[in-house]
Amino acid sequence: MSILIKNISYLDIENEKIVDNIDILIEGNVFKKIGTNLNMCADKIIDGNNMLATPGFINSHTHLGMSYFRNYADDLSLMDWLQTKIWPIEDKLNDDDIYWSSVLSLIENIKSGVTTVCDMYCSMEKVADATILLGIRGVLTRGLTDFDGKGKQRLLELDELYNKYNNAGNGRIKIVPGPHAIYTCSTEYLKEISKLAKEKYDNIINIHLSETITEIEDSKKQHNLTPIEYISSIGLLENHVIAAHCVHITDEEIELIKGKDFYPVYNPSSNLKLASGFTPIDKLLKNKITVGIGTDGDSSNNNQDILEEIHIGGIVNKAIEMNEKVVPAIEMLKMATINGATSLGLKNLGVIKEGFLADLNIFNLDSNSFTPRNNLISALVYSAKSSDIQTVICNGKIVMEDQKILSVNEKDIRNIIQTRWEEIQKR
Amino acid sequence: MSILIKNISYLDIENEKIVDNIDILIEGNVFKKIGTNLNMCADKIIDGNNMLATPGFINSHTHLGMSYFRNYADDLSLMDWLQTKIWPIEDKLNDDDIYWSSVLSLIENIKSGVTTVCDMYCSMEKVADATILLGIRGVLTRGLTDFDGKGKQRLLELDELYNKYNNAGNGRIKIVPGPHAIYTCSTEYLKEISKLAKEKYDNIINIHLSETITEIEDSKKQHNLTPIEYISSIGLLENHVIAAHCVHITDEEIELIKGKDFYPVYNPSSNLKLASGFTPIDKLLKNKITVGIGTDGDSSNNNQDILEEIHIGGIVNKAIEMNEKVVPAIEMLKMATINGATSLGLKNLGVIKEGFLADLNIFNLDSNSFTPRNNLISALVYSAKSSDIQTVICNGKIVMEDQKILSVNEKDIRNIIQTRWEEIQKR
Repeated sequence: MSILIKNISYLDIENEKIVDNIDILIEGNVFKKIGTNLNMCADKIIDGNNMLATPGFINSHTHLGMSYFRNYADDLSLMDWLQTKIWPIEDKLNDDDIYWSSVLSLIENIKSGVTTVCDMYCSMEKVADATILLGIRGVLTRGLTDFDGKGKQRLLELDELYNKYNNAGNGRIKIVPGPHAIYTCSTEYLKEISKLAKEKYDNIINIHLSETITEIEDSKKQHNLTPIEYISSIGLLENHVIAAHCVHITDEEIELIKGKDFYPVYNPSSNLKLASGFTPIDKLLKNKITVGIGTDGDSSNNNQDILEEIHIGGIVNKAIEMNEKVVPAIEMLKMATINGATSLGLKNLGVIKEGFLADLNIFNLDSNSFTPRNNLISALVYSAKSSDIQTVICNGKIVMEDQKILSVNEKDIRNIIQTRWEEIQKR
Repeated sequence: MSILIKNISYLDIENEKIVDNIDILIEGNVFKKIGTNLNMCADKIIDGNNMLATPGFINSHTHLGMSYFRNYADDLSLMDWLQTKIWPIEDKLNDDDIYWSSVLSLIENIKSGVTTVCDMYCSMEKVADATILLGIRGVLTRGLTDFDGKGKQRLLELDELYNKYNNAGNGRIKIVPGPHAIYTCSTEYLKEISKLAKEKYDNIINIHLSETITEIEDSKKQHNLTPIEYISSIGLLENHVIAAHCVHITDEEIELIKGKDFYPVYNPSSNLKLASGFTPIDKLLKNKITVGIGTDGDSSNNNQDILEEIHIGGIVNKAIEMNEKVVPAIEMLKMATINGATSLGLKNLGVIKEGFLADLNIFNLDSNSFTPRNNLISALVYSAKSSDIQTVICNGKIVMEDQKILSVNEKDIRNIIQTRWEEIQKR
């Protein structure tokens, strides 16, 4: 299968600029040729006139299985929210519930231009099936905890998941361990996971870290160390760490992670809505830390729109620093593309470039968001909406065309979720 | 003309709840009857099944004429932005440029459910023409400044504007004076405007206030008073004051405005993006101050989507206060409806209620944002998108139907804006 996109403008994220009137040839699952006036044949031609291509976006932190909890419990204190609302109902979810929720979440991701998700949840075989079906990439991480004595069992499940799904979907699925957090995993368990990651999982782990003040205080009480100091003390900074949140990262911790394979993932909506705090993105960038960006799950966000995260993250940091020049638009786009790929340990991804994996979005510039035509990098961050995205390509295949998801019927999926949710609540 | 909406859910904003299976009869420009199983005739029947009605939203602060500057100058320091970018190009705009920009801005407003805008700019006759054409309400305020010696002339223009347009468009247009800010109007000029407002303009003035740290510092230097202390000292708190921004409002100032007709208008995106700061909404609400909400102009936002403001304003205040319970969803909706109406001095508006003016939005609940069906008040604030809005009614007339603006061809307007903008830059 080959696709030739004619006369499009595209975001050259490496060189931080927009390039106009370019032809992009996709062959197999890679960008084969990018240039002007390509006289080449292709199975499908897309007219790129008045369109803008970006790399497919990378959602570096989410929980696809949580669709049911969208708008279910908001404006509550964290413990109320977890104890009286989320945990009791989460207990009732079965594998198929999580499958269908993942399908809906993936639809939302694709509609906002996401072609790679990094997910942490349970029933991950079902999440993998959904990701394969919807046609995008997944760095899928079995959530690991041992506070209930079931730590070993979860590691076995991870092993099975890896054997069955790693590299599945034509290489789109990558399985890595996801120790949930320092407060749900014992030190020994974290060390065991760290070792496993080195042996088998490209050294990668995915963890929630430094999300709330409570977590920081508990870590200090228990370990006499802040969370990142603690994971450093037990050797986890020798891993490639995808670290969701890092809201309360300190200057000392930044010194610790410099030069390491440690990648904070920014979740602006979730951090704001759950009153976790303001992640110091400008400080991280000034210290040359590579940052990814994520939506988090529907229970805290309450949607899966990565463009909203790019937008909100971009503007809120200017107010944090009281400086309108910090965290410029291009940095937000890098988080969702080239830096997201690095964060997740994915090679040849996140850039529209010959030889790179062919993940790409096509925005329709004939929309109010892009009128009049000014700085398109600003437009993508400050005014674009997911409804401006026309077409999404992942691994060389079209997954959304003219705003229509090709793999499933969106309306059917909504009906399934509604029916299941009514049933789940009666269990 | 009468419209009967059958079997709809609606937001009863006064009682802070959603009511299901209701029929709403609109006759002329008011809600005539709201109840169950209304057996009445109407010129048009709308099936409200799987739909949610909200009051038409009220955008209490914008500059419709600034569409051209969307994505034109971002990530710059305020003075750079104004001096090298916005002011020089703004000088080149003519009346017709502002007319067409206003048309585009009004389209965007309507598409996000706005049925009332409060605008401050120049060439206000053109803004009024556009507002009348698009079919929504405008509280239109001639921007008044006298730093250049042209203060008197602008008051004459205000007078002409009032005579020609006040109550135009079947009562949809209201003209009030808009002293731009305390740093662009002399004390004498502000006093004169205050007096005029009492005599002729229902006592209303619309002003930018306490937006930036610089404004506060300059006010202290010049008057030895903070901005609100200063306007109080010269009698402006005897007016009905629509006060855009109030980012840096102090506890002492809150005491000053309590019980007065003083209405801060929150502009979350603009305040964040221009690094103005974090408006203390929770504190204002706790002090029972009635707050409106606005998009500000396209040069600072960069769009006219009030739902985005409701969303961003809602979540950011939780992080400011480090408390996930503050500024609950319903408060954000009140800002954009019932409290917006009060802020602008508009009676019988902002509530779906018999006898009130028939301004109403219909959201399509068959969308991902509302799936599964949980708390619809949360959904409107945290997950809904403007693309979920199907129909918008203002003053008893449909202005958008099935997502189509009825008064103009949207694509034509975009083309006009693009052509004019290219021409403006060559002047």
